[in-house]
Amino acid sequence: MLIDDGCDLTVRLHAAAEKDPSLLADVIGGCEQTTSGVIRATNMHRAGSLKIPVVATNDNDTKRLLDNYYGTGQSVVDGIIRATALFMAAKTVAVVGYGPCGKGVALRAAGLGAQVVVTEVDPFRALQATYDGYRVMKMADAAPLADVVITLTGNKHVVSSDHMQSMKPGAVLCNGGQFVHEIDVEWLKKAAVREDTVRANMVRYTMRDGKDLVLLGDGNLVNLSCADGHPSEVMATSFLGQLMAVKHLQACTKLGAGVHALPKDLDKEIAALQLAALGVEMDVLTDAQAAYAKEWEEGY
Amino acid sequence: MLIDDGCDLTVRLHAAAEKDPSLLADVIGGCEQTTSGVIRATNMHRAGSLKIPVVATNDNDTKRLLDNYYGTGQSVVDGIIRATALFMAAKTVAVVGYGPCGKGVALRAAGLGAQVVVTEVDPFRALQATYDGYRVMKMADAAPLADVVITLTGNKHVVSSDHMQSMKPGAVLCNGGQFVHEIDVEWLKKAAVREDTVRANMVRYTMRDGKDLVLLGDGNLVNLSCADGHPSEVMATSFLGQLMAVKHLQACTKLGAGVHALPKDLDKEIAALQLAALGVEMDVLTDAQAAYAKEWEEGY
Amino acid sequence: MLIDDGCDLTVRLHAAAEKDPSLLADVIGGCEQTTSGVIRATNMHRAGSLKIPVVATNDNDTKRLLDNYYGTGQSVVDGIIRATALFMAAKTVAVVGYGPCGKGVALRAAGLGAQVVVTEVDPFRALQATYDGYRVMKMADAAPLADVVITLTGNKHVVSSDHMQSMKPGAVLCNGGQFVHEIDVEWLKKAAVREDTVRANMVRYTMRDGKDLVLLGDGNLVNLSCADGHPSEVMATSFLGQLMAVKHLQACTKLGAGVHALPKDLDKEIAALQLAALGVEMDVLTDAQAAYAKEWEEGY
Amino acid sequence: MLIDDGCDLTVRLHAAAEKDPSLLADVIGGCEQTTSGVIRATNMHRAGSLKIPVVATNDNDTKRLLDNYYGTGQSVVDGIIRATALFMAAKTVAVVGYGPCGKGVALRAAGLGAQVVVTEVDPFRALQATYDGYRVMKMADAAPLADVVITLTGNKHVVSSDHMQSMKPGAVLCNGGQFVHEIDVEWLKKAAVREDTVRANMVRYTMRDGKDLVLLGDGNLVNLSCADGHPSEVMATSFLGQLMAVKHLQACTKLGAGVHALPKDLDKEIAALQLAALGVEMDVLTDAQAAYAKEWEEGY
Repeated sequence: MLIDDGCDLTVRLHAAAEKDPSLLADVIGGCEQTTSGVIRATNMHRAGSLKIPVVATNDNDTKRLLDNYYGTGQSVVDGIIRATALFMAAKTVAVVGYGPCGKGVALRAAGLGAQVVVTEVDPFRALQATYDGYRVMKMADAAPLADVVITLTGNKHVVSSDHMQSMKPGAVLCNGGQFVHEIDVEWLKKAAVREDTVRANMVRYTMRDGKDLVLLGDGNLVNLSCADGHPSEVMATSFLGQLMAVKHLQACTKLGAGVHALPKDLDKEIAALQLAALGVEMDVLTDAQAAYAKEWEEGY
Repeated sequence: MLIDDGCDLTVRLHAAAEKDPSLLADVIGGCEQTTSGVIRATNMHRAGSLKIPVVATNDNDTKRLLDNYYGTGQSVVDGIIRATALFMAAKTVAVVGYGPCGKGVALRAAGLGAQVVVTEVDPFRALQATYDGYRVMKMADAAPLADVVITLTGNKHVVSSDHMQSMKPGAVLCNGGQFVHEIDVEWLKKAAVREDTVRANMVRYTMRDGKDLVLLGDGNLVNLSCADGHPSEVMATSFLGQLMAVKHLQACTKLGAGVHALPKDLDKEIAALQLAALGVEMDVLTDAQAAYAKEWEEGY
Repeated sequence: MLIDDGCDLTVRLHAAAEKDPSLLADVIGGCEQTTSGVIRATNMHRAGSLKIPVVATNDNDTKRLLDNYYGTGQSVVDGIIRATALFMAAKTVAVVGYGPCGKGVALRAAGLGAQVVVTEVDPFRALQATYDGYRVMKMADAAPLADVVITLTGNKHVVSSDHMQSMKPGAVLCNGGQFVHEIDVEWLKKAAVREDTVRANMVRYTMRDGKDLVLLGDGNLVNLSCADGHPSEVMATSFLGQLMAVKHLQACTKLGAGVHALPKDLDKEIAALQLAALGVEMDVLTDAQAAYAKEWEEGY
Repeated sequence: MLIDDGCDLTVRLHAAAEKDPSLLADVIGGCEQTTSGVIRATNMHRAGSLKIPVVATNDNDTKRLLDNYYGTGQSVVDGIIRATALFMAAKTVAVVGYGPCGKGVALRAAGLGAQVVVTEVDPFRALQATYDGYRVMKMADAAPLADVVITLTGNKHVVSSDHMQSMKPGAVLCNGGQFVHEIDVEWLKKAAVREDTVRANMVRYTMRDGKDLVLLGDGNLVNLSCADGHPSEVMATSFLGQLMAVKHLQACTKLGAGVHALPKDLDKEIAALQLAALGVEMDVLTDAQAAYAKEWEEGY
C-alpha cells in the first residue's frame, strides 16, 4: 500500500519496477494526497504506465475543500508572516492560481487586510475570483503591482523571468504549490549579483540593476519551509481520508489500475467523525423529509 | 424543447402525456435550472418515468456556483431588508441549509454584520459552515436564538410547528428555496389567532399565547416576492447555460432519456463570455506549461 | 428647543431673528444630528453668529459611530440596490470620503462583494482606508474605474464635471451625504442631451458623445430617496441622543452660545439602554479592578 | 526626555526623585506609548504626583488607531499561531476587552475564520462589538465556551480563578495587554499539580481534577513573547509619533506638568509621511471646497 504525496513514491516505484517488476507485485494499491500528484497519476494512467489502483484522496471533499482551502489558507499566510514579519494590511498580494489552495490563501490574506489580486488560466475560476471581490488580471499586469506573490497552480514557471524583471524593488516571492518549479528560481539565482539571508528562510537577491527581490523558503512550499505546515486539526481529516482509502482498497479487491475516487459515503463519514470531535451537532432528515427528497410529484 | 424551472413543466407534460402520448413525441429534450428541479427530474428518472433527455443546467458551475451562491446571496438578503427594513447588524440569522444558496446567504448576511447560525443534515456541509466561522446547531437549538430564519434546503417543513413554537416573539420567517413547503406555513396560519399586514409582503401572525411571528412573501421565494429576484448580471450566465443546453440538445441527438450534465467546455465558454463582458483579462498557459500539465515525470 | 438636522432650522431661525430678535428669545438651545450640520453650526459660532447653545448630538459615540457608520452603511447600499437592482459583487465602487459614513458604506459594499476604492482629502483617513484593504487614489484616478460612485463627504462638487467626463459609460452616481451639492448635478443636467427614467429614482443622462451616466434619487440622500432610510434599531440610539440633549439643555442652564458635546456618561447611558433592549449582558469592574484602573504604582 | 512605554520609566524616575529631586531637574518632558501607560500617567497627575509634561503619543490617531488596532490585531494572532499551531477556523475565541487592541484582534481572528465572542465593561464598546457581528457576553458565560481566551483590557485579573475553573479542557490563555496581571497567572500556577512545556512558549498546566489549561508566553504580551511584535511598517508611524512629541516638547517650552495630546496637525503629518512612503496619493480640497467647509449659509 502506497500512501503518497505528490505522486513521488508511485513514480519512483514504477520506474524501479521497470527493472525489477517484482517490486509492484504485492502492491494492493495506493492513495494520493495532493492535486499535483493526482494530475501526475492521471497522466501516468492516460499514458498506460500506471499499474496499480490509486485512490485520489486529494479529491475527497474532506481533503481538497478543507486541507487545500482552510489549511493552506492559514498556513501559507502564516509562513509568509513568520519568514518576513511583514504587515499584511498594507500589501498588495498576488495570488497566482484560484483553485482550492488559491481561494484559501486569498481569503486569509484579505482577512488580514491585504489587497488581493488574482491570476488564472481557467475562465470559471477567474470569474469566481472577480465575484469574490478580487481584481483579476494577467500575471504580466499583476507583477508590477504586487508586494507579495504567492504561487498555487501546480504548474511550472508561472512566475517567469519576465515577470520578475517587472516587479517592484523588494517584492516578496513564495510558493504554496506542491513543487519548487512554480517560480523560475533558477533564473533568479543566475540573474542575481548578490544574495543575502535577511532572516531565516528569507533571502534577498540583488539584480544587476540594483533591484532586490526576496525569495522565501528557497521556493519550496512556504507553509512547510517557513512555518509548521497545516494545523493538526486539518491533517486529521486528511489522514482519515488516507485511512479510509486503505480500508477501501483492502475491501474492494477488484479496483483496476487507474485513479479512483473514494466513495462519497466514506467521505461523509470522515466529516461526521470530525464534527463529533468538535462537539458540533446537526439535524437528521425526518422520515417525511427523506421521502420528500426522493419524490418529484409534489411541487408548489 | 422544455426550458424548465423547478421541473414543473416537465412533470405536467409527462402527466398530460399519460393520456396523450403525442405531447412528448416531438420534444427533443429539456433543461432544468434549479437544484430542486434536478432532484425531481433525477427521481423521475430513477422511477423510470422520465421520457426525455434533461440537461441539468442548474449543475453548471456557471449556474449553481454563481446564481445560487452570489445571486441568491444578494437577492435574499435584499428581499428581507426591503420587506422589513430590519437592521441586519444586530440580528442573529439562522440559515437553514448550507448548499450553494445557503452559503451565499450566510456570506451576505455576515457581510451586513449579522450573527449567522447554520443548520444542516449533511456532515460535510456542516463542517464547512463550522470552518467558515459560523455556529452550526440543530434547528431545535437555532429556533429560540434566531431573529430571522431563512430556509434554503429544497426540502419540506424544515421549519416545523415545534420550531415555530420555540421561537422568539417577533422572529421573522422567510424562504429562499424553490418551494413554499420549506416552512410549515399552513400550521402557522391555522395556529394564528390574528393576522396583520405590517408592510407589503410582511405579515404578522399572533399566536394564542400572544407571541408574534412574522412571515415574508407568504413563504414564497423571498427574493422574488419581496425584491427584484436576481440581478441581471447573474441571470446572464444562467440564461447562457440554457442557451448552451438547447444548442447541445440539438447537436447531440443521441442523448437518451435521463439527466445529463452540460459538457465542461461549454460551461467554461459561458464563463469566458461573461469575463469578456466584464472586461476582465486572464492568462493562457504557455506551451511549456500546457505540456507540463500533461506529464508526470518531473517532480521536484 | 431646536431638534435640528443639517442645521437648517438653526440657520433659518437665526436669519429670521435678524429681523425679529424675539424669535430666539425663548429658545433654550438646540441639538444637531449630522456631521454637516455640526460643521455649519461650528462655522456660525466661529463667525460670532450663533446665539444659542447647540448640543452636537451627531458627535455622540452612540450617534456618529453607530448611525453614520452602521446605519448609513446598510441603508446607502440598500438604496443603490433597490434603485438599480445591480449585482454588487462584480462592481468597482468608489467611496468618496472615508469618515464614519464612508467607512460604513465601504464595509457593506465590500461585504456584498464589491471592489471598493476610496478617495479622501485627510491623510489619516486615507491611511485607515489603505490599512482596511481598500485602494486609495485621487478622484481623477477613481472616476474612470468606478461602476458606482458614492459621495459621503459633506463637501461640494466632490464629483465634478471633469470627473463625470472621464467616467465609464453607464456609471452610476449617487450621494449618501447630507446635501445634494456633493455631485455637480447641475452640470450633469445641462450637459445631457437626453434624460430617461429607467426605473423609479434611476435616471439615465445621455451626453453629447453618446455616453450614459446614471443618477440615483436626483442626487439627494440615496438611502432616503431610494430606500427606507436607516433601520429603526439605529434611529433608536440617535433619537435617544436628542432626548438626552434636551434633558441636558434643560438641566444645564448655564451652557453658553456655542457647540457643546453631550457628556460622556449620558452617551454611555444610551448605549446601556440599547444593550438592554437587545438582551445583551456585559461585565462590570470588580472593586479591585476599579481601584486598579485608578492607580499607577503597580506595573509588571 | 523620557520615551516611555507602559509608564515604567516615568514611575521609577519619580520614585527615585523623591530621594534625589535633581533627577527630574533637567527633564524637559516625556512621551508615553501605551494605553495602560497613559492611564497610569493620568492617574499620577490626578494624584498630584506627576512633575513633568507627558505627551500621550499613544493617543495619536496614527498610534492608537493604527498600532493598537492593525498592529496588535496581526501580531497577537500571529503569536498565538506560532506558539500553538492551532487551526483558527474551528475555534471559539474570546476577546476580553473591545478597545482598539481588542477590535483589531477580533477582526483578525474572524478574518482567519474564528468564531469571536467579546466581553466588555463599557456599554458603548459592547454595543459596537454586537453591531460588528460578535456575540457579547459576561466573562463568566464566555469562559466555558472559549477554545482561546485573549485579554486586552489594561486591567487586572480579567481572567480570574473562577473563570479558569469553568473553562474547557485544553483551553488556551494568552494576554495581548500591556501587563502580565490580566490573567491571574499566580493562581493558575499554584492550582496546577503539573506543568509541561508543550512547545516553546506554550505551557500546559494540569489541575487537580485532571483538566489542562494552556498558557502562552507565561502571560506576557503574546505578540512579543511568542512572535516578532508589531511589523516594522506599523512601528514606523508609532515611532514617528515619539519623534514628533520630542520636537513638540522642545518647541513648546511652556507645557506644564500633566498629560498632553500631540497637536492634530503633527498627527496628520505622520499619516501623510506614511502615505507617501506607501506611494498612495490622495485628493486636496479645491479652493471652493475649502471655502465651503468653512461656511454655513449654503444648505440644500
